[in-house]
Amino acid sequence: MNKSPIGIFDSGIGGLTVVKAVQAALPFERIIYFGDTARVPYGPKSQITIRKYAADDTAMLMRYQPKIIIVACNTVSALALDIVEKSCGHIPVTGVLKAGARLAAEVTKNNRVGVIGTLATVSSNAYGLAINQINEEIEVISQACPLFVPLAEEGFIDHPATKLIAAQYLAEITQKGIDTLVLGCTHYPILRKVIEETVGPEITIIDSADAVALRTRELLTEAGLLASTRNATTPHLLVSDLPQKFSMLYQLFMGSEMPDVELVEV
Amino acid sequence: MNKSPIGIFDSGIGGLTVVKAVQAALPFERIIYFGDTARVPYGPKSQITIRKYAADDTAMLMRYQPKIIIVACNTVSALALDIVEKSCGHIPVTGVLKAGARLAAEVTKNNRVGVIGTLATVSSNAYGLAINQINEEIEVISQACPLFVPLAEEGFIDHPATKLIAAQYLAEITQKGIDTLVLGCTHYPILRKVIEETVGPEITIIDSADAVALRTRELLTEAGLLASTRNATTPHLLVSDLPQKFSMLYQLFMGSEMPDVELVEV
Repeated sequence: MNKSPIGIFDSGIGGLTVVKAVQAALPFERIIYFGDTARVPYGPKSQITIRKYAADDTAMLMRYQPKIIIVACNTVSALALDIVEKSCGHIPVTGVLKAGARLAAEVTKNNRVGVIGTLATVSSNAYGLAINQINEEIEVISQACPLFVPLAEEGFIDHPATKLIAAQYLAEITQKGIDTLVLGCTHYPILRKVIEETVGPEITIIDSADAVALRTRELLTEAGLLASTRNATTPHLLVSDLPQKFSMLYQLFMGSEMPDVELVEV
Repeated sequence: MNKSPIGIFDSGIGGLTVVKAVQAALPFERIIYFGDTARVPYGPKSQITIRKYAADDTAMLMRYQPKIIIVACNTVSALALDIVEKSCGHIPVTGVLKAGARLAAEVTKNNRVGVIGTLATVSSNAYGLAINQINEEIEVISQACPLFVPLAEEGFIDHPATKLIAAQYLAEITQKGIDTLVLGCTHYPILRKVIEETVGPEITIIDSADAVALRTRELLTEAGLLASTRNATTPHLLVSDLPQKFSMLYQLFMGSEMPDVELVEV
């Protein structure tokens, strides 16, 4: 079981930021990653559709007998974590949302936390609920930033248009006295620099990808499931479609050349 | 047969610009529209996936026995029009791409035509091939504008960021002496004003939605299939998912309140 892989899935390639964070936190582990690139994005879709997709994605990873499943998709974490838990039996499950919420609740000093994400994540108020389950004193202020994903994927990392859009999206939320801001979408670490510059140095950025990697290390340690010897360093990649830009995007997210990718059908 | 509906499909809601153009050109006709909102966008996906989706979309419309099928999706028009034709028997099929190409070839005076669209449409060079089939003297210069769809859907119609991005995308193409520019994506008419201002008054904009509406009128007239009495004015809408923003987007695209929508499974 210790040698079993860590299974990670996302609606597309955004979850690669989680792969990168898990590699950094757990360098001995094998990783299997499924990106549902044929049906990306989940964010704007309805809850019924998102829950169906979450079951499919879990079933896909279960073929590889993972020792833990990480839901790298904020939308699924927000709307369908129970479906993932039901579909995978006794294996532990962790998601970017709960992990990000835990870390934010620990870090905030003035109990005012901002959350940015897709429209679906923000409308669900799932971060707010998760943070208030830990500490109901914390006030959570959310803002949807729908253009951040396409801007990240277009590589407009440091573009004046990205700065203008960030300024517009973040104006209100930063005026509300938050001391902590959760990047509630796996794409947003790509735009971290612009976001940091826009909100200023007083606000601590919480990257849910880092948070879930740390949480995974805790869970595997508790269960005695850490790998004891170094395994393959490149992740095993499964995708439901191979988009034209995939190799460029892999490099943007991972900072390294793309390994072989396996095309699977959901 | 004359009373049968006109079937129109698109990967999502972008094809509503075609619905609007067809309503204007053929006010007596009944329209049935299918938007594959569960699997939108097609643009960044692979050709195999796009061809599979095109067959599904055609089958969906065929249940309603349309007298003609309009492919309102540029990506499907570019990569899978033959699949649509094979899947619908003897019914005439027309697509935004061929219609836009025909009109551009008629309008250009200096035989230099620009085309803007999604990455998939532009990479396929399908507009270039279609235009050169009509007149091989015409030089076609293309540019992918991946951020135009999310900007349109976010309602950033007249936003400074949209102007900056348009200036960047269109700088090269407008310096190449084109006198005609094809909007090769159904979303782009929403941003027509910014695009027109960016390219200047010397360049004639061709809207593929208008072009395919005119072509549909020609085909129905030739086949003696025009409706002779006024039918329902609101289109019958089918979608594979009902996104949260659908009603806002319907209003953005159609300029009127959203009618009832039928949720279907593909």
